[in-house]
Parts: sequence; structure tokens; C-alpha cells
Amino acid sequence: MTRIAIDGMGGDHAPQVIVDGVVQAANFFDYELVLVGDEAQLKKELNNYKVPGGRIFIHHASEVVSMSESPVHAVKRKKDSSVNVAIDLLKRKEVDAVVTAGNTGAAVASAMLNLGLLSGIKRPGIAITYPSAHGISLALDVGANVDPTPEHLLQYAIMADIYSRCILKKRNPSIGLLNIGEEESKGTEVTKEAYKLLRESKLNFVGNVEGRDFFSGKCDCIVTDGFVGNVVLKIIEGVVDVAGTLFKREIEKNPIAKIGALLCKPALEAIRKDTNYEEAGGAPLLGINGVVIISHGGSTPTAIRNAIRAAASSVQYKINDQIVSEIQHREKSEKA
Amino acid sequence: MTRIAIDGMGGDHAPQVIVDGVVQAANFFDYELVLVGDEAQLKKELNNYKVPGGRIFIHHASEVVSMSESPVHAVKRKKDSSVNVAIDLLKRKEVDAVVTAGNTGAAVASAMLNLGLLSGIKRPGIAITYPSAHGISLALDVGANVDPTPEHLLQYAIMADIYSRCILKKRNPSIGLLNIGEEESKGTEVTKEAYKLLRESKLNFVGNVEGRDFFSGKCDCIVTDGFVGNVVLKIIEGVVDVAGTLFKREIEKNPIAKIGALLCKPALEAIRKDTNYEEAGGAPLLGINGVVIISHGGSTPTAIRNAIRAAASSVQYKINDQIVSEIQHREKSEKA
Repeated sequence: MTRIAIDGMGGDHAPQVIVDGVVQAANFFDYELVLVGDEAQLKKELNNYKVPGGRIFIHHASEVVSMSESPVHAVKRKKDSSVNVAIDLLKRKEVDAVVTAGNTGAAVASAMLNLGLLSGIKRPGIAITYPSAHGISLALDVGANVDPTPEHLLQYAIMADIYSRCILKKRNPSIGLLNIGEEESKGTEVTKEAYKLLRESKLNFVGNVEGRDFFSGKCDCIVTDGFVGNVVLKIIEGVVDVAGTLFKREIEKNPIAKIGALLCKPALEAIRKDTNYEEAGGAPLLGINGVVIISHGGSTPTAIRNAIRAAASSVQYKINDQIVSEIQHREKSEKA
Repeated sequence: MTRIAIDGMGGDHAPQVIVDGVVQAANFFDYELVLVGDEAQLKKELNNYKVPGGRIFIHHASEVVSMSESPVHAVKRKKDSSVNVAIDLLKRKEVDAVVTAGNTGAAVASAMLNLGLLSGIKRPGIAITYPSAHGISLALDVGANVDPTPEHLLQYAIMADIYSRCILKKRNPSIGLLNIGEEESKGTEVTKEAYKLLRESKLNFVGNVEGRDFFSGKCDCIVTDGFVGNVVLKIIEGVVDVAGTLFKREIEKNPIAKIGALLCKPALEAIRKDTNYEEAGGAPLLGINGVVIISHGGSTPTAIRNAIRAAASSVQYKINDQIVSEIQHREKSEKA
């Protein structure tokens, strides 16, 4: 049975929301779930639920990394933090995957230090999946690597391709390079060089794409550096918030529009659900020698449940084996 | 009387939309307007309107730079293109400012080559103004400089401060540095160094801001490199489009929501108007020795009219004199 460790103390509303999500997952799926964190707190939370027998376990960890803590400091000093202990369980093969909604930097640092990279991979990347005009799209990196080389970007494209095939069920996923124009000559030295590498690869590379193509469905996967990717991720969150605020403000001015808004509510809720990044269930940290899923700090219980499902899928489809084999295959054909 | 040259041939729907906008401006404002481009075409377009006497002039230019043309090629080979001729009129002081909705790269290249930079300024930057939760905000650079140094970013902050005071009427505009976290230690080597320069400056620097702060009104001005700024700009355009598409798709499924949407229409139109980047009237190209306003290729006539007004404001408030004086003042105090 697939066994997944969940950082019980990581996230804006831990451990309550995390425990709620884990209980949901235990009721929905056939996995063994290991909650990692302060045993007393986690037990107390679990007592609020009726839990299916033999599915949820607690593994004690005495420390917690806060959301604002420096990642390197956290990993080096807090050896017994919930995220470190969860990743250590994965290292020792006591679990098959880890889900954390805690400090992203600490999760990346702990994974790098304890699990290391997949053979042949130079840098890890955080991938997000989100709804676009043509189904679920993927973008990476969104924050692990702010200064990638062209080769890092090529490896991101390879990992995006494999994840899209296996998990998102795309047949021949199209890959775009995020840039400020479609022409090959656009962008920085890094994007120009990455363009060449991608064009020469056997990937279904569709060329440069622009900011507007995030939602247009022009390609299945967008490759970018972690700085731009992270800004984009947070812009999208900000836009959804501000759209809601503006809408509320305007309908308050107009009683008829207020009635209209009530009638639209189911449609608006449906959009909200479709575009809720939390529904995707967390962002896989690709390139790491182990399955680690990073969830948003403000995740809902449903998001945690979905992140657990995403972790199990990555285990089931042996994503990492496929990445290693693809990278080795490329290296061989380059030498040949 | 303020005299403004408008690139009559630049933009997705030139010359029709441009001429329409120029006629609107002639009716609204007290400026002399010089349409630059193919005389026959512009005359033909103007014949469709009742034009106030002695306000609109045509200045012939035989060539046109297309939207997809390589900027450097365009500026070097097409000396008689409408954008080059308009900027040349500015160089010869026959007009006070230029507005163009054509190829952005060509406008920047022509301005750099013909007008040069303001004394002390190292690189030009394109600034956009847009509505946030607390009034009109400004962001720069959004595409002129994809690889800025920390000093370029500091100069962008100085120019943003002056533009916000003079044109947007902000008293003590707050400046944020776009980054992937609030902590000083976040980001690339360039953002870390820029953070230090900004903190040491006399500007109202509020520290690092994130993607979500574009709309939160956390600061009045956001400083960023042209790569990230351009991606953000196009994301925002894309998000508005996709929100409309999703809303239409959902209400089609539900007859009651369809009625609701009709009742909400005035509120939705108000939001659309408030958030329409074209209403801002074009993006000033700051740092250039002359007033140049760059409008979106898909500008409406109203956007062109507003861009003409923005150009006149920059002339009236002597933005460029203030930038030069501020930069000189800083240089002196550094030497002292």
C-alpha cells in the first residue's frame, strides 16, 4: 500500500487544516498516511474526527519551521522539524512520498540536502498545474531556481514533458519557453540559448510564448526561471482576489446588479472552483530523488487531500524513474 | 500651444483608429496635433470626420514599420518610417512630444538613436500606469531593458517617484522592488544589490513586494526588470480575457445565471472600464531626452486620445527637467 508522510505542522493553519485534509484523504483513498509533527497536538486534532482504522499514523517531530524562517537556517538548526523528519522518513524508505504546506524554501533545502537530485539532473524545479483554455496546463520553475542556466531550462522542459504525459495524460505535450516576444531573438542571453537547446531537442517545442499564453492554452507546458515563475504565480493569486473585491464594490452600488450577482452565484462558484490553484493539489518538486509535493501555505483541507492524491500518482507512475531514464537516454545519444 | 506628433501608421488598426483618436483629442483638448504617415491615406481617413480648424496637420512619411519587424533593422533601414519621422520632428523641436502605438522595440530604438538619454540616465524604461486597490499605480520597466543592473533599477525608482508626484499627483509615492519574497535576502544578485541601493536612497522605499502586490495597493510604484515587467503586463491582459471567456462559458450552462449576468452588466462594464489598461493612455518611455508615449498596438481611439493627453501632461510638468535635476542632485551629494 502506498504510504505518504504529511508535514502536520506546515502551513498557515496547521495542524487543524492539515489533519482535516488527511482525514478526508483517508476516507477517499486507499493509502497509509503518516502525520509528522507534535504528537500531542496531532492526537488532539485527530480526536475531532471519526478516522477509518489503521490508515492514519502519527510520527513525532519536536520542532516546527515557521513560514517566514530562513530556509537554510531552518534545515541546518532544526533537525527535528516536521518537514525534515518527514523527508527523512522518505530517505529511509519508510514512506513513498512527502506532502508539505509549510515553508517552501525549507522543503526544497531539506529535500536537496537529504534526498539529493536525480542522477543527471542539475537543479530541482517546482511545477504548478493550473486550468487554461485547453485543459490543465503546467508551468515550471515557479520558485526553486531564480538563476537557471539554459541547460537547467532544458531539463525543466524534459521533466515537464514526462509529468504531463504520466500525470496529466497529455499525448504529446507542447512546450513553450516564456519570453517577451515570439521571435527567437527576443529575451535575455539565457532564454536565447535555451531556445536553441529546446529547438534541437526531441521535445514538442512550440517556441517562445508570452505572458498572455499562460491561459490561452497555446502550449501544455511553460518553462521559465524561478523568479519570473514565482512572480507570475503570485500575480495570478492577486488577480483573482482583486477581481472579487472589484465585483463586490461595483454590485454594492447597484441593487439590480446585486440581484443579478445572486443569480450568477452558481456560475461564479463554478469558475472559482475551476480556477482555484488549490484544487490542483500542490506543486510537485521535480528533479529530487524522491516524491515531494509542496502545497500552498493557505491550503484548504481539500487541497491537502488532492496533494496527497497527486503524491500517490507520482509514486504509482514512477515519474522519477522515467526522468532518469530520459536524461540518460539523451546523454547517450549526445555521446554517440 | 503644445504640439504633439502622432505616429499615424503604427498599431494593429492604423491608420483608422489612430486618426479617430486624434480627432477626438482635437475636439477635447487645446493642442496642435501632427499626424505622421502616408499623406494620401491619412487625408482619406480624416475626410470621414468633421475636424476643428487649424488643429490637425499631416506630415508625410513614406515608410511603415510593421508590428513584427526587427526593431534594429527597422530603425536603420527605414529612415522615412512614420515612427522615425515623428521622433525626428521631436529632435528638431518642431513638436513637444510623440505618441506611437506601433512596434514598441522600434520606438525605443529610434528614440535612443535620435534623441538619446537624459543626462545621467543609463537606460530608458517603459512605465505603465494601472488601477490597483488604492488608486492608480505605476510599474517600470515593462520591456525596454531585460537585463538591468542594480543602478538601472535605482534610476527607474527615481523616475517612477517623479512621474508619480507630477502626473499621478501622489504626495510621497511609496516604491517597492518586485521580488519573490519580502525578506532582503530573497531574489537574484541584482535584486539583492538593488535592495541596498534603494534602502540607502532618500526615496520612500517600502522594501520587496511580490506578484500579488501589483493590485493590493501596497505601494504606489513597482520597480522591476523589463523581462519580468513585460511578462506581468501580458499576464494581466491574458487574465482579463480568460475571465471573460470562463464567465461566458459558465452562464451559457445556466439560464438563471444568464439573466443574472444581464442584470450585472452595468457593474461588469464599470469594472472593465476601470481595469482597462488602455484607459491609462499609453506608457511613458522614461529616461529619453524627449517625451515619448508608447500605446498598446490594439489601442482604441479613446486610448489614443488619452495617450495624447498623457504626452501633453509630461510636457507641461517638465518631467524630464525634474529627472535630470534629481539625478544631478544625487550625484553631487554622493561626491560631497
